[in-house]
Amino acid sequence: MQSFELNKTDILRLKQALEGDDEDLRALLLEYHATEIAILFSSLSQESRDRIISMLPSELASEVISEMDAEIHPERILENLHPERLSEIMEELDYDDATDILSQLSEDRQNEILSDLDDENARHIRNLLTYDEDTAGGLMNTQVLKINSRLAKTEALEEVIRQSEEMEEFYTINVVDDHNHLQGIVSLKDIIKSKNTVIVHDLIKEEFVYVKANTDQEEVARLISQYNLTSIPVVDDEMHLLGRITFDDVIDVMEEENTEDILKISGVSEDEELSGNWKEAVKSRLPWLVINLGTAFLAASVIRYFEPTISKLVLLSGYMTMIAGMGGNTATQALAVTIRRISLTDLTDNQAYRTILKEFTVGLINGACIGLIVLLFAIFYDKNPLMGLVIFISMTGNLVLAGIAGASIPLVLKRIGIDPAIASSIIITTFTDVFGFLLLLGLATRLLL
Amino acid sequence: MQSFELNKTDILRLKQALEGDDEDLRALLLEYHATEIAILFSSLSQESRDRIISMLPSELASEVISEMDAEIHPERILENLHPERLSEIMEELDYDDATDILSQLSEDRQNEILSDLDDENARHIRNLLTYDEDTAGGLMNTQVLKINSRLAKTEALEEVIRQSEEMEEFYTINVVDDHNHLQGIVSLKDIIKSKNTVIVHDLIKEEFVYVKANTDQEEVARLISQYNLTSIPVVDDEMHLLGRITFDDVIDVMEEENTEDILKISGVSEDEELSGNWKEAVKSRLPWLVINLGTAFLAASVIRYFEPTISKLVLLSGYMTMIAGMGGNTATQALAVTIRRISLTDLTDNQAYRTILKEFTVGLINGACIGLIVLLFAIFYDKNPLMGLVIFISMTGNLVLAGIAGASIPLVLKRIGIDPAIASSIIITTFTDVFGFLLLLGLATRLLL
Repeated sequence: MQSFELNKTDILRLKQALEGDDEDLRALLLEYHATEIAILFSSLSQESRDRIISMLPSELASEVISEMDAEIHPERILENLHPERLSEIMEELDYDDATDILSQLSEDRQNEILSDLDDENARHIRNLLTYDEDTAGGLMNTQVLKINSRLAKTEALEEVIRQSEEMEEFYTINVVDDHNHLQGIVSLKDIIKSKNTVIVHDLIKEEFVYVKANTDQEEVARLISQYNLTSIPVVDDEMHLLGRITFDDVIDVMEEENTEDILKISGVSEDEELSGNWKEAVKSRLPWLVINLGTAFLAASVIRYFEPTISKLVLLSGYMTMIAGMGGNTATQALAVTIRRISLTDLTDNQAYRTILKEFTVGLINGACIGLIVLLFAIFYDKNPLMGLVIFISMTGNLVLAGIAGASIPLVLKRIGIDPAIASSIIITTFTDVFGFLLLLGLATRLLL
Repeated sequence: MQSFELNKTDILRLKQALEGDDEDLRALLLEYHATEIAILFSSLSQESRDRIISMLPSELASEVISEMDAEIHPERILENLHPERLSEIMEELDYDDATDILSQLSEDRQNEILSDLDDENARHIRNLLTYDEDTAGGLMNTQVLKINSRLAKTEALEEVIRQSEEMEEFYTINVVDDHNHLQGIVSLKDIIKSKNTVIVHDLIKEEFVYVKANTDQEEVARLISQYNLTSIPVVDDEMHLLGRITFDDVIDVMEEENTEDILKISGVSEDEELSGNWKEAVKSRLPWLVINLGTAFLAASVIRYFEPTISKLVLLSGYMTMIAGMGGNTATQALAVTIRRISLTDLTDNQAYRTILKEFTVGLINGACIGLIVLLFAIFYDKNPLMGLVIFISMTGNLVLAGIAGASIPLVLKRIGIDPAIASSIIITTFTDVFGFLLLLGLATRLLL
């Protein structure tokens, strides 16, 4: 599909080479792209990863480390490296990648590593370590291409070429005044196209998007995606240019946020690592199950309260399962659509109101349809039309409530500043269990006994 | 947070201006970015959208239309436009955006609109309409910057500047031979930096990623994200350059795919529009509920089979809910983690096996913990240790099965080429219901009667 990609044969070849001697392995590895070696790392032991990093040229080694999935812990490789080799690799890493990896280590270890770096690099990284990792400051790269607005065309071009030597990639040229205040942006194309007499100031695009260092990373992702930006400058409160965030960082943030959403909505802690071991998984999920057990006791207590009814009409137990199950599913459906919608756009009051009204309507119609099927079953199979009616009413009522709850609970949570995805299907399902049992058993006690 | 963004005051001002006359409204709109007007459109009526588009300069109007969320139907604006104005706007749209919008209209209407365009534009769009919208061909823009590898430095620079005049943005320069075969890529920076004697061929980066027109859009997104590309060239089977896909298209694809994942895992059809009306929602969700009703009848039939047991031990009905509920939640947790994991990486056989083993272990431990709490409750509250033991075994057994099913069902589906997210929590929950009831009621019949 493209000129370079890791397929099964590649993985097999590489794994075989791991059995052999260093020279052959090294030669083979050099045929691959850093990204590919990083992908291979996912299926290797820590020992093999350490060995490979130790034999690669330090520039390639640093690229592999920066491309490694955070879940397979690039910082462990650093931990195991010879100090001298470690400094070499750290110098090659982009500041933002170096910071991300260092932030996973203890403060003592961070200081140890930083003290071996040259002052300039250490200063940049120390500075980045002060920002919360979920903010623009935590995401940004301080290596940023900037030129003074007073430069003439040819000086500007020379400056761009000079600065870009040290940079892997640049997309936007930032324009600053003498005091590093960000004034605007300019594109390389515009500089080239311009007449020889212009200065940078004449070319500035003053309408541009920027973020402050403390802006949340989700907001940064939203802006980059909405305005189709390749990179976005980061400034402090006085508009001093601090760094830039590029679209590829944001793609990673989006993947991460989406994983968290799916996990939370399913009752898994957002920070469970997908490839983590069973211990982490138990730690992340057992608390949710215990909370749910509490609410399940609540549902069970409703059943216990109506035990006399059930013992007279054992047929009801089968229907209980159906009504609770369909309620849970309806709530999950409404929840997923609503949570996803509010994670993509902010709803006005009127839109929020219409969302709840819509889910009410959907619950009513789906409830009536499903209820009707069950009603027919009760009439023709159980020969009990009155019980059928009780079940029809309970099914419809429970699905209406499920729709309203599935839509309104996340909307309310968002309004009061709580992450709506926390209203996971686990919590909401018990809600519909309790209500469904109350409705069915209450009505049955009244009408059927 | 940035120099331009739509806040509540802006929205209020714009909505007030909508009450006033065209001149004032137009003047106010011109202060905003196309993206912002597109955002505003989400909370306006179709009528107001049509009015605004009709009064904007055609370039801005086309930008607004291309930035509009597909969910608010940009094609409806085209439907309502005066034919002459429509052609003006169509000429301004990028080919890929024009194609996306046209593809929502009937074939007759498409032909009508295309026949009013100039031949060159119509040919490009007709060509794009032939590709499936979920493939690279459907995503790509045919307006692509390309230079011949035999050009000298200054000719190349002139050519890049000339071609880029017609393009909003470019990131990579594609290099082709005399027959439009893609040979590699080159960056503007490298051309500028090069000596005056080189030709483009000397500067080519031959290691580059490209896709074929029929490549699935998810694969395109994966490559752009993995290799941090701003754009990726699209070729046909003979390596002829057809177009390019940029990172911003891919960000949209990722949002879309993530929405589909969350919806499918929650038992909602992947093509339900988040802001769609209740009719669409019923159409998208009722079929899933009916399927689930079928499986719920299965669970209910297990209960019916054991009715004699339940009528003797009504206490069991409360515990039934708990065991089924906790099983469903455990399965949902395992399912979410596994589906998310395999959507991000391909697992080897060994990794798949270890994933199932992990979920088995997690189910066993969580099942034993939850089972123990319920066992204690049965001993101290119900004074029935033997029933407590039955419940403990059933709870543990059901959670083990839930973990195995939650991990292995999506893994198997992926192997046999079915979208794993189809194993929605709705389906898997009934699975654990049936097994939980069988276990609890079967054991109770054997041991407690």
